[in-house]
Amino acid sequence: MEQKLCVCVLGLGEMGKIHAESLRRLGGVELALASKRSKSLQELGVRLYVPEQLRFSSYEEAIASPLVHAVVVATAPSEHTQQIIAASRAGKHIFCEKPLGLSVESAQEALSCLERVQAEREESERKIFMIGFMRRFDPAYVRGKELVESGVLGQPTVLKCTSGDAEYPAKYQRDVGYNSLLLDLAVHDIDLARWLLAAEVHRVHVVCRSLVYPQLAELGDADNAIVTFEMDNGTVASAHFCRAFGYGYNVTSELVCQRGTVFLGELRRAGDAVRVANTAGALSERIAPVFAERFELAFQREMEVFAQAIRAGVLPTGAPGALDGLQATRVAEALVRSWQTGLPQLVL
Amino acid sequence: MEQKLCVCVLGLGEMGKIHAESLRRLGGVELALASKRSKSLQELGVRLYVPEQLRFSSYEEAIASPLVHAVVVATAPSEHTQQIIAASRAGKHIFCEKPLGLSVESAQEALSCLERVQAEREESERKIFMIGFMRRFDPAYVRGKELVESGVLGQPTVLKCTSGDAEYPAKYQRDVGYNSLLLDLAVHDIDLARWLLAAEVHRVHVVCRSLVYPQLAELGDADNAIVTFEMDNGTVASAHFCRAFGYGYNVTSELVCQRGTVFLGELRRAGDAVRVANTAGALSERIAPVFAERFELAFQREMEVFAQAIRAGVLPTGAPGALDGLQATRVAEALVRSWQTGLPQLVL
Amino acid sequence: MEQKLCVCVLGLGEMGKIHAESLRRLGGVELALASKRSKSLQELGVRLYVPEQLRFSSYEEAIASPLVHAVVVATAPSEHTQQIIAASRAGKHIFCEKPLGLSVESAQEALSCLERVQAEREESERKIFMIGFMRRFDPAYVRGKELVESGVLGQPTVLKCTSGDAEYPAKYQRDVGYNSLLLDLAVHDIDLARWLLAAEVHRVHVVCRSLVYPQLAELGDADNAIVTFEMDNGTVASAHFCRAFGYGYNVTSELVCQRGTVFLGELRRAGDAVRVANTAGALSERIAPVFAERFELAFQREMEVFAQAIRAGVLPTGAPGALDGLQATRVAEALVRSWQTGLPQLVL
Amino acid sequence: MEQKLCVCVLGLGEMGKIHAESLRRLGGVELALASKRSKSLQELGVRLYVPEQLRFSSYEEAIASPLVHAVVVATAPSEHTQQIIAASRAGKHIFCEKPLGLSVESAQEALSCLERVQAEREESERKIFMIGFMRRFDPAYVRGKELVESGVLGQPTVLKCTSGDAEYPAKYQRDVGYNSLLLDLAVHDIDLARWLLAAEVHRVHVVCRSLVYPQLAELGDADNAIVTFEMDNGTVASAHFCRAFGYGYNVTSELVCQRGTVFLGELRRAGDAVRVANTAGALSERIAPVFAERFELAFQREMEVFAQAIRAGVLPTGAPGALDGLQATRVAEALVRSWQTGLPQLVL
Repeated sequence: MEQKLCVCVLGLGEMGKIHAESLRRLGGVELALASKRSKSLQELGVRLYVPEQLRFSSYEEAIASPLVHAVVVATAPSEHTQQIIAASRAGKHIFCEKPLGLSVESAQEALSCLERVQAEREESERKIFMIGFMRRFDPAYVRGKELVESGVLGQPTVLKCTSGDAEYPAKYQRDVGYNSLLLDLAVHDIDLARWLLAAEVHRVHVVCRSLVYPQLAELGDADNAIVTFEMDNGTVASAHFCRAFGYGYNVTSELVCQRGTVFLGELRRAGDAVRVANTAGALSERIAPVFAERFELAFQREMEVFAQAIRAGVLPTGAPGALDGLQATRVAEALVRSWQTGLPQLVL
Repeated sequence: MEQKLCVCVLGLGEMGKIHAESLRRLGGVELALASKRSKSLQELGVRLYVPEQLRFSSYEEAIASPLVHAVVVATAPSEHTQQIIAASRAGKHIFCEKPLGLSVESAQEALSCLERVQAEREESERKIFMIGFMRRFDPAYVRGKELVESGVLGQPTVLKCTSGDAEYPAKYQRDVGYNSLLLDLAVHDIDLARWLLAAEVHRVHVVCRSLVYPQLAELGDADNAIVTFEMDNGTVASAHFCRAFGYGYNVTSELVCQRGTVFLGELRRAGDAVRVANTAGALSERIAPVFAERFELAFQREMEVFAQAIRAGVLPTGAPGALDGLQATRVAEALVRSWQTGLPQLVL
Repeated sequence: MEQKLCVCVLGLGEMGKIHAESLRRLGGVELALASKRSKSLQELGVRLYVPEQLRFSSYEEAIASPLVHAVVVATAPSEHTQQIIAASRAGKHIFCEKPLGLSVESAQEALSCLERVQAEREESERKIFMIGFMRRFDPAYVRGKELVESGVLGQPTVLKCTSGDAEYPAKYQRDVGYNSLLLDLAVHDIDLARWLLAAEVHRVHVVCRSLVYPQLAELGDADNAIVTFEMDNGTVASAHFCRAFGYGYNVTSELVCQRGTVFLGELRRAGDAVRVANTAGALSERIAPVFAERFELAFQREMEVFAQAIRAGVLPTGAPGALDGLQATRVAEALVRSWQTGLPQLVL
Repeated sequence: MEQKLCVCVLGLGEMGKIHAESLRRLGGVELALASKRSKSLQELGVRLYVPEQLRFSSYEEAIASPLVHAVVVATAPSEHTQQIIAASRAGKHIFCEKPLGLSVESAQEALSCLERVQAEREESERKIFMIGFMRRFDPAYVRGKELVESGVLGQPTVLKCTSGDAEYPAKYQRDVGYNSLLLDLAVHDIDLARWLLAAEVHRVHVVCRSLVYPQLAELGDADNAIVTFEMDNGTVASAHFCRAFGYGYNVTSELVCQRGTVFLGELRRAGDAVRVANTAGALSERIAPVFAERFELAFQREMEVFAQAIRAGVLPTGAPGALDGLQATRVAEALVRSWQTGLPQLVL
């Protein structure tokens, strides 16, 4: 039997826990955990049957450990760039949650380091780098991409996206001056537009509003945004971002093609095949409340792809890499400029 | 321009009003009304712009009037047989609400009279007779029949029907010993089975229950029934009849064919294209509360077909005639025997 | 009985025929027709049972006739302004298809004339004017408006609209320099945004593309547009206009409110309650191919509201009047400027 | 950390593979495999990372091994009874695919042995026995059961079930005289009726047909059956079993309660949130082709419940045990008698 692949999750917050659970279910993978919070480390370690020697109390230690073959970077965004650089130099395969860095500059720095280290290595020694745009692994989006590539619907022309939460996530309330709607949520749809329309974003226009949480305007954030993306192949994408849907989590898209349209995702809970008819005369279905439930399968599949890529020695076509992370950050920065100026902005 | 066709509705209860409204919307039709209740006659006459000379205070008078070309029999079921006979002898075209009569005998009597009078007439003088199985004109059921006849789905094998009201209709509470569930509701699905499976019912089995309204057992009625119909071409139909859905009116069917299945009708309001997502995390649609709303288009189309048939001089293929009324009554009586004996019963 | 109301349809093209059919079904309404094409007049007159004396071979004659109480203006858009003025002076009630005029100037001229004539009349002699934004009468949009006004969903924040045809309508191919996408299709969604968000449009941004019909770029038209509307109460609307859906006609909207969202309209045929499961393993429903089918009920209801308004002497709340027509034209002109400049534009 | 639980799957056919995959994904479980077919054993062992010492080439060996704590019996139905007896005597926890035995007698023998062995043990030494009615773990059915128990819908009155395959499974073609439709497929719905209506089946009636595969009549099997179940608490269930849906796999139910109805399961692929609108004017979704896909989550959850029950020392409420297996077989035998006699039959 093949040697087990040891993958260490760095950071055991919301995303780190999701990735650890996904890795635990994979055959042939040995899960390791790293966290500065000893209680989280202990609890998750026990629950997921992680042996003591694979529980690390510092990220540096985990990155340095010869037992660890790969890392999943799920720490605070401000730490991503330096951890990518460190893990890359230590010869680890890397899966990094978005973003690559907090700015185009730091994202560029991470990308440059990855390229340099790869170039120094023998081909057989090259390492995998993958970024966490998990929507590319959601069954609905996978199917949309397949349909486009099959040609049966003709060329795609317009992509329309909706992305949003039931309510404004508490974690952003401390980040004064950080437009989380554009920098944190919109990046997923920027990536979808680039991937599904097979083009780069050329120019953007955005209108932001704070209609449900007026205080967000002062924070420099917003609860609703309407965005137009002009792609460099002539196609167009439109997106609505929202932090106040009230009813639950909603990520859905409509990809209009020359000979048909595909509707991707839906509001109701994935896999919830229950409809209730009640005495008020209504027939109702339940809505997925949060992203973790909506993208459960995508997160699982993402880790499978990462592990398979390590075994195969190459990232499969369509899996998002470092350049995808950099481009998303570039477009997000153009969105911020459009928001500040009220005018369409070229992506620089 | 063609002469207007004068159609008189006999009886202005729930069904009479529906037919009068439908006739009023037809081009080239002059509506007449007959009712023993002067207030109903007056009110509806004014609302539907019916001139005084076309408002009749007795059914006999209406049937005898030379102004009237056709009648719509929407009186009490106990009067149907005699009115069919009278109108037939008076040379009127007839549309009759189901049933033809309260028993197989009276239905047979109506049919015999119709046949005798037709036989005595010149071919060009023959009159139209149509019975009120309006489901045959509902867009969903029309489409199901078309699909079967197109052959694209192969031969039909099994039909499954659901029919029922939100609650037990008050009007039946006085009819002691009358199993309205089998004699009044089931006849529609008996007709559907005969029409969609293109066969006669050979044997039936029924289980009746009074689970929501226990008092119905004493009345000789029931609030739920599960029926199996064995057709004489080997196909089978199953039906659930209910007087206690609570949520609204539900008439839906599933027609299983050799190379596919067609699902006919649905719970939500016909044409109600509104879904609401609320803070409880549910996505809901509204349900049609009553049959009048569910079959609004079918009732309209039914009168159109009747008027067109009169002009064309012949009932179109698939429109239900007197024999269809008789057969439905025969099967309903077999259902009553199965209910009384607990055993499968042949249709006699 | 009340006197019958005589309504004359001016112009028997696609829209005129739809309105004539709707009027024919109304109780208490006498239909009249006016067309310069004698063949259309004859055919439709016979089919809809219109007496000879109510068939007019010139619009002027119809407008002048004392037999006619009201007109439905369904002629070419270039004639609307002058016919509104003529009919208004002749003391007729007027229903006019959009637009009021080909430019803000001519729409303003029509509105001014209507106001002047009304002001000169006694209150009891005032006439009804209504414009053809039929979506306000579609059951789905009516329900959306009711939900907003009921307050159950809280304040509306964002409206997202999709409007489009299966293919580019042939009739526009001769109108060089006319952006039919913005001037003819978008006006309906402009009206929806004003009505559902209860606000005026303040600023617009549009991106137009000719992706399926490249020749449209030269004609000055487009097959796809993504529009952002900033409303003067802070809310936002986004719309996608398309002339190349391929699959059919699609008018759907999503109205996001503070405590819930309502999804209005849907792709499948209104009232088509048939789903087919076939051997390819797909469950399919049919899509409404054209606007006439999608909005059949709205067109019928629109004429009912017009006739009722005439009888009541007042246009009901929410029914679209001349000012709504003018405002839609104003916003459409701002869209054209945004398309020409590539920049957001204020509505002047 | 807790000791890992070693679970050995006996038989690596279709069901054995499904259970092995599910067990492999569980934390704290060590998977073992037993098969007489060395190739299957080798292939699956490698693919699922099962160490050599946990691969057994005989069922007896696996049952006897001190390394194995629990077995999953997924062998041929004819072997179930004896393997249950052997594993029970060897002190293993047992999960057994349905049926317990090929007849009521053998199912009774298995149950008696299990009870005898349990009775001989100390309470703390008692072993878990669970049977494979996986629908009880499907999210839709779990939710239906919760709704009933919550009381929000009132008492359940009628259950309607549909169960069937796209085509007749090849594996049954050799079993002459075996009515697989009633003995193999219907047992799942028998269990659903008992579980959801919280009652035992009192009397049954069935009509069987061979309409798509006429040769099945000679085999003593059928491709369609319509069944009525009268429950001992007065409620009723109806079911349609089919081996020839053509379009895919369909397991759906409708549970009618006094104050509402819940629709469980649906035709489209679980979790497939993709709808395609094409140039033929149809909007389509995909259907789950086979049971393994439809019940993927239920199978996974079933193994989780089994493993948790072993750790907890007790089967949770609602998980199906040996008595549920015996009762299903009893009812299935009554169905066979009803099919043979054409009459309703009491469950003996």
